[in-house]
Amino acid sequence: MKIALNPFIAGIPANPLRALFPFAARPGMLNLASGHPSRDAYDHEGLAEALATAGADFPAWTYGPSAGDPLLLAALQEHVAEVPAGHRLLVTSGAQQGIDLAIRTLAPPGATVLVPEPVYPAVLSACAAVGVRAVGYRTDAADAAMAGLAEALAAAPDVRALYALPTFGNPTGETLDQAQRLAMLALCARRSIPIIEDDPYRALWFRAPPPSSLMALAPQVPGAVVIHLGSLSKIISPGLRLGWAIAPDAVAGPMQEARQASDLQPNSLAQRVALHYLRLGRLDAHVVRVRALYAARHDALAGRLAGAGFDVPKVEGGMFVFARMPDEAVRDGLFERAVANGVMFAPGPAFSLRPGDVAFAERMRLCFVGLSDAHVLEAADRLIAVVRG
Amino acid sequence: MKIALNPFIAGIPANPLRALFPFAARPGMLNLASGHPSRDAYDHEGLAEALATAGADFPAWTYGPSAGDPLLLAALQEHVAEVPAGHRLLVTSGAQQGIDLAIRTLAPPGATVLVPEPVYPAVLSACAAVGVRAVGYRTDAADAAMAGLAEALAAAPDVRALYALPTFGNPTGETLDQAQRLAMLALCARRSIPIIEDDPYRALWFRAPPPSSLMALAPQVPGAVVIHLGSLSKIISPGLRLGWAIAPDAVAGPMQEARQASDLQPNSLAQRVALHYLRLGRLDAHVVRVRALYAARHDALAGRLAGAGFDVPKVEGGMFVFARMPDEAVRDGLFERAVANGVMFAPGPAFSLRPGDVAFAERMRLCFVGLSDAHVLEAADRLIAVVRG
Repeated sequence: MKIALNPFIAGIPANPLRALFPFAARPGMLNLASGHPSRDAYDHEGLAEALATAGADFPAWTYGPSAGDPLLLAALQEHVAEVPAGHRLLVTSGAQQGIDLAIRTLAPPGATVLVPEPVYPAVLSACAAVGVRAVGYRTDAADAAMAGLAEALAAAPDVRALYALPTFGNPTGETLDQAQRLAMLALCARRSIPIIEDDPYRALWFRAPPPSSLMALAPQVPGAVVIHLGSLSKIISPGLRLGWAIAPDAVAGPMQEARQASDLQPNSLAQRVALHYLRLGRLDAHVVRVRALYAARHDALAGRLAGAGFDVPKVEGGMFVFARMPDEAVRDGLFERAVANGVMFAPGPAFSLRPGDVAFAERMRLCFVGLSDAHVLEAADRLIAVVRG
Repeated sequence: MKIALNPFIAGIPANPLRALFPFAARPGMLNLASGHPSRDAYDHEGLAEALATAGADFPAWTYGPSAGDPLLLAALQEHVAEVPAGHRLLVTSGAQQGIDLAIRTLAPPGATVLVPEPVYPAVLSACAAVGVRAVGYRTDAADAAMAGLAEALAAAPDVRALYALPTFGNPTGETLDQAQRLAMLALCARRSIPIIEDDPYRALWFRAPPPSSLMALAPQVPGAVVIHLGSLSKIISPGLRLGWAIAPDAVAGPMQEARQASDLQPNSLAQRVALHYLRLGRLDAHVVRVRALYAARHDALAGRLAGAGFDVPKVEGGMFVFARMPDEAVRDGLFERAVANGVMFAPGPAFSLRPGDVAFAERMRLCFVGLSDAHVLEAADRLIAVVRG
């Protein structure tokens, strides 16, 4: 029998980053495509200790509250999440679930959510799955008043939320400065549009902490509403699949109901592992170590590529650069040749708003954190050889 | 500022079972309300061993495929999940995520999904969250041809799926016999309506295995389509939040895309714990022990209540009875008095299709598995005292 499907779900565009998984498993592949921490950027000793403690802790094995384990909620507030008055904290299954819940809670089918262009493609999937239109806005360093955003806001109908990744963005690695943040808050407040601030990379700065989050700045802008999303994936372990959302009470309640309808509650075992890890008091020192690792790898990769004619925009932290390859290198089949040469990058068009679009064809997102120092340089050399080939 | 919300999400009815959580935490409370395995129904030794092995296994800590860890998919097929030709297996975050994904994949906003009445309330939440109408159908042991279902099918417009929990149902504990299963398959096949078979309790039989699943029977009925949902929550641990879905390729692909849009992938750590637990080869003996535990508790509870004038429909497995209290006991405030007397039940109206409905006011769902043998009898005595009070 022919099975009728919900057209929203049938129409979710394939996530071009997840489609790269099979290539990454090839022997000897040097993967600059995936945003995965390298094996030496985990606190294996601390995780082993936390795991052993969690295993002997019965709540790890049974049902728990939909908003999250109360002890983990308290530990997150102590270590990583600042919750303003009138707001609530929810544990989520990674920041992705926070994105999904925030979009679904704010935007009914047919409505519009504004997203940066280029964009992290899983945001487009979350919109498509519920029939929400994603419309792009542009930002760049020279646009202090966020004129690109103002233009998009004026043009798009029925905008219910703005999605932003203002700190060490994905794919760009770029960071909005404080003036741009205040301009974004003001533009959205004027139109009563809540901002979904995706902020998983904040802790990964190289030399100086990034500007305050949109959520922290919001009290300076009357009427501004921010839903803030964080993640333990980049600072503890992606396999725990744990993040958090901080939202005004009026939004957090419905988000929690939506979460309960989706999958009842966060993973109990992973929550207890995270709890006991945070209680060990090792996180701060671990993150200091990771920052230094990532800064060194960034400098190595960016330096080598710049020397070979790539334009590598300056970033101050995070995991990615969105490098522009030399003009003569832009041509079809480059990704396949790179794979054949043992190196992977995430092609620029993967971050365009429409599948099949050729926007950003001259770019590649390169994740500099997933390989050891020696492998980062080797990967750069392979990439340079392919581009020159 | 007033924040506009998606009316579907704002309209999710509160889950009356999850609302009971705070009462359950009161000191000395004997909880017959929640469907939670008791602490002595876990294989603590096996779980500790699996956890230690998983912790030393790097894929536990990093990203993995959206369909699930390939090694766990293989282990599920070896131990608990039979995947027919033309079908695919997906790991889900508990059976609840399977319910949510199946409903969303099959039914667009405004369409109808048929659900049994009384119903497990989280199914209603999953429908409401995406604007899908839930319309009830009745089943009972005397209705061999499923006339109640035929009637509902004929009356409801734009039915896109039928949700069924045919084996040790929740809340009823009842099981459809083979003739009823074949009738259900035929009725749905005739209208090209896929069946979502929620089957988390199958392993928990008392004296004899239940009839074959709808999925196993489907090949006997031309045109029948079944999406089968299983869970490790009732046989290994609910805290792992792991279940599985088996669906025809044409449905499994979009379900996986929807899953990826929601939360990227299943929990890596929990998947490796489940994998290493299954590999220990302890599951079968563990489940044999759990069956005996639960059968004894069922008999103790049902016997004590029947002796006090309750009508306790016979069940052959699972975790629940949907007992009818003596007529004179039916009155407002019973739940509150039970709580004051140190015992909790799930009130019958929690399983009605509309919040505030008084259907099933004479019923209480009693979970007989969550308390030790001695406590089950003490809980029954407290309940009898309240009902007589």
